[in-house]
Amino acid sequence: MDNLAVVFLSEVVGTAMLLLLGAGVVANAVLIKNKGFGGGFLMINFGWGLAVFAGVTVAYASGAHLNPAVTIGLVTNGVTEFGQGVPVNLLSVLAYMGAQLIGAFIGAVLAFLAYKKHFDEEPDAGTKLAVFSTGPAIRSYGWNLVTEIVGTFVLVFVVIGFGRAEPAGLAALGALPVALLVVGIGASLGGPTGYAINPARDLGPRLAHAVLPIKGKGSSDWSYSWVPVVGPLIGGALAGVAATALLPVLG
Amino acid sequence: MDNLAVVFLSEVVGTAMLLLLGAGVVANAVLIKNKGFGGGFLMINFGWGLAVFAGVTVAYASGAHLNPAVTIGLVTNGVTEFGQGVPVNLLSVLAYMGAQLIGAFIGAVLAFLAYKKHFDEEPDAGTKLAVFSTGPAIRSYGWNLVTEIVGTFVLVFVVIGFGRAEPAGLAALGALPVALLVVGIGASLGGPTGYAINPARDLGPRLAHAVLPIKGKGSSDWSYSWVPVVGPLIGGALAGVAATALLPVLG
Amino acid sequence: MDNLAVVFLSEVVGTAMLLLLGAGVVANAVLIKNKGFGGGFLMINFGWGLAVFAGVTVAYASGAHLNPAVTIGLVTNGVTEFGQGVPVNLLSVLAYMGAQLIGAFIGAVLAFLAYKKHFDEEPDAGTKLAVFSTGPAIRSYGWNLVTEIVGTFVLVFVVIGFGRAEPAGLAALGALPVALLVVGIGASLGGPTGYAINPARDLGPRLAHAVLPIKGKGSSDWSYSWVPVVGPLIGGALAGVAATALLPVLG
Amino acid sequence: MDNLAVVFLSEVVGTAMLLLLGAGVVANAVLIKNKGFGGGFLMINFGWGLAVFAGVTVAYASGAHLNPAVTIGLVTNGVTEFGQGVPVNLLSVLAYMGAQLIGAFIGAVLAFLAYKKHFDEEPDAGTKLAVFSTGPAIRSYGWNLVTEIVGTFVLVFVVIGFGRAEPAGLAALGALPVALLVVGIGASLGGPTGYAINPARDLGPRLAHAVLPIKGKGSSDWSYSWVPVVGPLIGGALAGVAATALLPVLG
Repeated sequence: MDNLAVVFLSEVVGTAMLLLLGAGVVANAVLIKNKGFGGGFLMINFGWGLAVFAGVTVAYASGAHLNPAVTIGLVTNGVTEFGQGVPVNLLSVLAYMGAQLIGAFIGAVLAFLAYKKHFDEEPDAGTKLAVFSTGPAIRSYGWNLVTEIVGTFVLVFVVIGFGRAEPAGLAALGALPVALLVVGIGASLGGPTGYAINPARDLGPRLAHAVLPIKGKGSSDWSYSWVPVVGPLIGGALAGVAATALLPVLG
Repeated sequence: MDNLAVVFLSEVVGTAMLLLLGAGVVANAVLIKNKGFGGGFLMINFGWGLAVFAGVTVAYASGAHLNPAVTIGLVTNGVTEFGQGVPVNLLSVLAYMGAQLIGAFIGAVLAFLAYKKHFDEEPDAGTKLAVFSTGPAIRSYGWNLVTEIVGTFVLVFVVIGFGRAEPAGLAALGALPVALLVVGIGASLGGPTGYAINPARDLGPRLAHAVLPIKGKGSSDWSYSWVPVVGPLIGGALAGVAATALLPVLG
Repeated sequence: MDNLAVVFLSEVVGTAMLLLLGAGVVANAVLIKNKGFGGGFLMINFGWGLAVFAGVTVAYASGAHLNPAVTIGLVTNGVTEFGQGVPVNLLSVLAYMGAQLIGAFIGAVLAFLAYKKHFDEEPDAGTKLAVFSTGPAIRSYGWNLVTEIVGTFVLVFVVIGFGRAEPAGLAALGALPVALLVVGIGASLGGPTGYAINPARDLGPRLAHAVLPIKGKGSSDWSYSWVPVVGPLIGGALAGVAATALLPVLG
Repeated sequence: MDNLAVVFLSEVVGTAMLLLLGAGVVANAVLIKNKGFGGGFLMINFGWGLAVFAGVTVAYASGAHLNPAVTIGLVTNGVTEFGQGVPVNLLSVLAYMGAQLIGAFIGAVLAFLAYKKHFDEEPDAGTKLAVFSTGPAIRSYGWNLVTEIVGTFVLVFVVIGFGRAEPAGLAALGALPVALLVVGIGASLGGPTGYAINPARDLGPRLAHAVLPIKGKGSSDWSYSWVPVVGPLIGGALAGVAATALLPVLG
């Protein structure tokens, strides 16, 4: 396989794993009759964090972005090579992002299959959508955008910090640091919008929601869908720039 | 001791530890009058994850499969040696699986003893069975099977990923990565069936439930018992094949 | 300072840290008006686990037993030296155990001071005792003893396993493995008796409860006090023997 | 940039990250309509612990004090150099502390922006203040001070312990040990005062509360504000002295 194909496939596999477990924990917590029903926000935070843990582990070959905001943040940070020595250019950026979107779609479909009977018996259409995509607690596109920008900034800025500050130590922890970071961002900044902080994580499953034959489903809420795409892209890009500006601080 | 005897004993000890702590956390959360009664699904997830942590630590000699689905997944992945240099063949596979079943039985008996008075005072027979074996939230053999296949696929696929992607780093974390993975699978995919994801974990304790003199016990629900055996074996076998196919991606 | 004095002081400091944070988390969860009131059993499990994390970190010099059951388990396991090259003999064993008891007493007093006003306002005497010492959910000395033996066996057996299986890796994790193990034992085996699994952890604070001027305190429940002393000593001793017998399995 | 400027900027960035995530998790748990509303004290503990994780990671260059109590504790411990080889003197101490205060202010403002709509809709003024600064569960300046002294002593004493006991191992874990320690201190000693254990963490956001245009805000409770400043400074200074006295024990 050529290197671009390897990183493409790696991002598909990793992002599918991320969404299977990420959408899964929401399904468990919110869909009727589940054993984890009402398990609480911290369970959702750990579920998403460990979804990242699993996804990053299996997408080692591509550097495990799994998120267009991470890809764009590395670009604005001035990285010249992605995983497998693939050079940073328009084609490779689009390959990463396309793979992430496809992977997220696949992962959401798998989560749907794992929870099929609970979707069938869940009476509320909004709850069904919540398994796939994020939505705001208080709808206010401007402020929702701010929240997504801030959350994604933290994600990408600290991820770049992992790489710079302690290469020896943190490499030994594999996917653990970013998993813990995502647990933390969820607990700390997930309240207002449900922390998409990743355009593929939100858009891919929203597409899946739109096309899957989900019993009693309602709207896919396309009017909100641009917020968790645009916000994270802005936040990620800003983080890359900020990390460059603060290079002496980040080591 | 010869090597096959060592790995056999190692799997017995490790799987007994796994079930003692795994059945234990369910007992604590569901049996009447316990201090952890109603402790929530996340407590159960951490309990099982740390049960894996303890079990894997003490079963180092055999490679700590503790799960027939892991054993079968390594076989379909093309591994040629298990722990202690024991060659992969029908005898060694059966030795691993037999040891896992025996260990799971023993661990469940120990958990029963640790919670003896709470079994005595618990009025509901179904709750007592839930400490030993899994059951579906919505009974639907086909979809329950799908859920178990998906959950076990994730387990075995990512475990193989741990080994390939970052040998240096993750070896330093010992049993921690797989423990965290099991916390995550529980939170994310445990809702519909209680995540057996391990035939021995379910069948061994079900046998223990059937033979132990548990006050006021009811049916051992044998009609469901094949799902958490067949599902995980299919999921594990598929994961081994998929990991081979995706070798460049997994490193 | 001579070596025995160093390990003595180290065990005092470490066990005081353990009890300050361990009794503290119970106080937070059960005493009226606390911000963590009703925080749940998992919070208590993490509190105790991280109490071990802190205690073990600062008692590095003595090998951080912090628990007579660990000391006795190392003896029956055949260890010939404790921390600082101190030889295993009656004097050093008594020094370890005496230091642990003193440290536990001090830690409980500090926790009392940190929660002074909440003790003053708490109306229930039994709740006050629960901050210091364990008590059974269902009083049955025989079965309570079994639970404490099983829990302590797991603790000491796996701790010995940490040392044997993966010295390079787990050493890098410092106090983290044993902390996680204690989170797990609490969640999985803490339901019936509140998991003393450490004679000093229970007896030292019970003495503190007896002598401290706690407003509205009741009985120190001396009739139960032997269970969390004798049970853990038996469990620890058995674990040391079992670990020796299973040496090839533990590596 | 000269070294003092680097450490100054590093402390600003790290403490801003700390407060953004720390104030954020409280906002999520207590402000009306959030997805994590009522998420519980353990979620808050993990949120603050992982806030430390993120903050320490990005403030690697300065040694990541992020807390005047840590800075003062290192001084009383006898450290002669801070990060980047900056010598310990009045100027550098003031630079660290000033940077921490500014960073905490900035972080609280960012958290306010991320939760803007929830502040707008929250009816209770006291709840709004709780996002920024700590307050006592039972107001009693003397005992509140004791609690803050004890909590900060634990923080600084164990942090110094990390550095002495196992440099090789714990360095490999990067910011993880101190993050876990803060989870533990929160669960164990956070009940009476909400664990400021850091003067900058409390005073910076309290200033932000005072000056920000928060809809329907009430008093900034300046009468209590000295407790979470003085208590942590005393606790940190005592910990540095104690750690020096116990050097053989800490390794």
